[in-house]
Amino acid sequence: MPEPVASFAEILALLPELPGPDLESATKAAAREAQLTKPAGALGRLEEISGWMATWQGAHPARINRPRVAVFAANHGIAARGVSAFPAAVTAQMVQNFVSGGAAVNQLCTAFDAELRVYEMALEKPTADFAAGPAMDEGECARAIAYGMMAVEPGIDLLCLGEMGIANTTSASAICIGLFGGTAEDWVGPGTGVAGEAMARKKAAVDLAARLHFAEKRKPLDVLARAGGFELAAIAGAILAARLARVPVLLDGFACTVAGAVVQALDPRGLDHCQVAHMSAEPGHRRLLERLGRKPLFDFGMRLGEASGAALAIAVVRGALACHNGMATFADAGVAGKD
Amino acid sequence: MPEPVASFAEILALLPELPGPDLESATKAAAREAQLTKPAGALGRLEEISGWMATWQGAHPARINRPRVAVFAANHGIAARGVSAFPAAVTAQMVQNFVSGGAAVNQLCTAFDAELRVYEMALEKPTADFAAGPAMDEGECARAIAYGMMAVEPGIDLLCLGEMGIANTTSASAICIGLFGGTAEDWVGPGTGVAGEAMARKKAAVDLAARLHFAEKRKPLDVLARAGGFELAAIAGAILAARLARVPVLLDGFACTVAGAVVQALDPRGLDHCQVAHMSAEPGHRRLLERLGRKPLFDFGMRLGEASGAALAIAVVRGALACHNGMATFADAGVAGKD
Repeated sequence: MPEPVASFAEILALLPELPGPDLESATKAAAREAQLTKPAGALGRLEEISGWMATWQGAHPARINRPRVAVFAANHGIAARGVSAFPAAVTAQMVQNFVSGGAAVNQLCTAFDAELRVYEMALEKPTADFAAGPAMDEGECARAIAYGMMAVEPGIDLLCLGEMGIANTTSASAICIGLFGGTAEDWVGPGTGVAGEAMARKKAAVDLAARLHFAEKRKPLDVLARAGGFELAAIAGAILAARLARVPVLLDGFACTVAGAVVQALDPRGLDHCQVAHMSAEPGHRRLLERLGRKPLFDFGMRLGEASGAALAIAVVRGALACHNGMATFADAGVAGKD
Repeated sequence: MPEPVASFAEILALLPELPGPDLESATKAAAREAQLTKPAGALGRLEEISGWMATWQGAHPARINRPRVAVFAANHGIAARGVSAFPAAVTAQMVQNFVSGGAAVNQLCTAFDAELRVYEMALEKPTADFAAGPAMDEGECARAIAYGMMAVEPGIDLLCLGEMGIANTTSASAICIGLFGGTAEDWVGPGTGVAGEAMARKKAAVDLAARLHFAEKRKPLDVLARAGGFELAAIAGAILAARLARVPVLLDGFACTVAGAVVQALDPRGLDHCQVAHMSAEPGHRRLLERLGRKPLFDFGMRLGEASGAALAIAVVRGALACHNGMATFADAGVAGKD
């Protein structure tokens, strides 16, 4: 477990420590895959996923014995500008709903036998309004990143990441401008369902922030501090800690993937141990995945956040490993190979 | 349970008996969905699926207590023309692999807690070579349909359908021509992996069959008998029996969906109780789904058959029902609604 950090220098110092792919496990997975009783390649993406799990767990056969779903919750000063369809109080109410077991992610964790952890990040103390100044200072941002790292505990073998935070698609859109350029028109969408004047306020807030913070090109962690939220910083930290601990990661929708984009901006291979679980209905997600060169596992028009898409994807990874680890080989089964 | 039938007239007589949607259950599902602790529509296709399950089980809340995966296996006379990458003996070898628990579908059924039934259809007696004459006569085809109906037993609440039959993508392609027109070029793909001369033989066999059988427009069951296989006829029967018993159905890939297309040709609402689990890598599947107006649940480039994609989709349906049935309402959870 990395020690808590309070400066960007300490986070940047982790980057050279990030392990690369375990090519020995990858080779073992490919060798076994070729012998299984099916035409070569016939399980498509399931084959890719089982190989990816072996590569990034650094073990063959890869296993899922203890998957964790980590949901980070925080509040955003920008919410006071009326950019969301729901009041900021809903962040805390939904955290209570997670604790009581009533949210979508609770049901999905139960259905797919995953452990749910909700990380409540000082909901009474939102980030500053990033249309008026930086959302966080360096110390706050670095401590939020370090806090997120704690979600990766020994024994976890698959980590699903997600968030809850009223107004965080506003924050995520502004981060996209900081990382990739463009305007609010390119990156802002309805989030939980804004339209009309609220949508106009959301776009105006993001364009104001873009002029304030991103008239010049900023470094990735500076982008995160200026326009991010505590939960997004924490997700970036969890991604880094998972890589250090050889834990594969499933990313959820738009806001979560934006946190991933900060990591990829820090290190172009920084997300290689991650899969994007699903394509969110939030339009910025499609553009972001194109920028990141990522193909999500499924496209169900979900836009709930709270790691719901990532939790659903646990089943796909389980199915992929079940096939890879459990199938008979042509030799075992006495099945004739291809002519 | 319908009695076994031996004529097309008996099958056609079932069509007026097929139940329509249970609008009362559909209404209950929609009413509950609107109260759950999430922005309206935020679970996307999961909401559609939970509503579809209630509508076609005719019950709210819908349940999955006993999902069944039914794999029908048969041999095809057309295989003797060298249209497949694998010898016809592989059908029986793979059935043995299913019985021994070594195939992909076995692992997926174990992972997702589904019952697997393999229906072996006289593998020693393939259909006739349909490039030289009809694959089946009416009695053979009707009995195969009736046989497939037996897969729907009392207590089953979700039925996944799939097939195993060397050369059955050749048969499926010919059925597509019979139902929708076109040529081998439009509908024939690599199946288990044919290329070069084998692909040329496959296309030639399908074009020969098309000229022989489909120079004039045929009725759907006649198309099935002329170019189909026992396993494809059985799947059509299972689809009809599931509708009669109010059991929702997950269809697998190209060959399985072609059997579904015969049912839709018999009755334009005949597949309303079915979802197509996935988009197969077999190129004809995409064209077929466009014809049928169907959007599959996922697109993983799978092309294995044996109900593997349908079995994987059980997890998605489970996740959808877990959310719909288990989530708290806004009132339960004390969460504020939309502004």
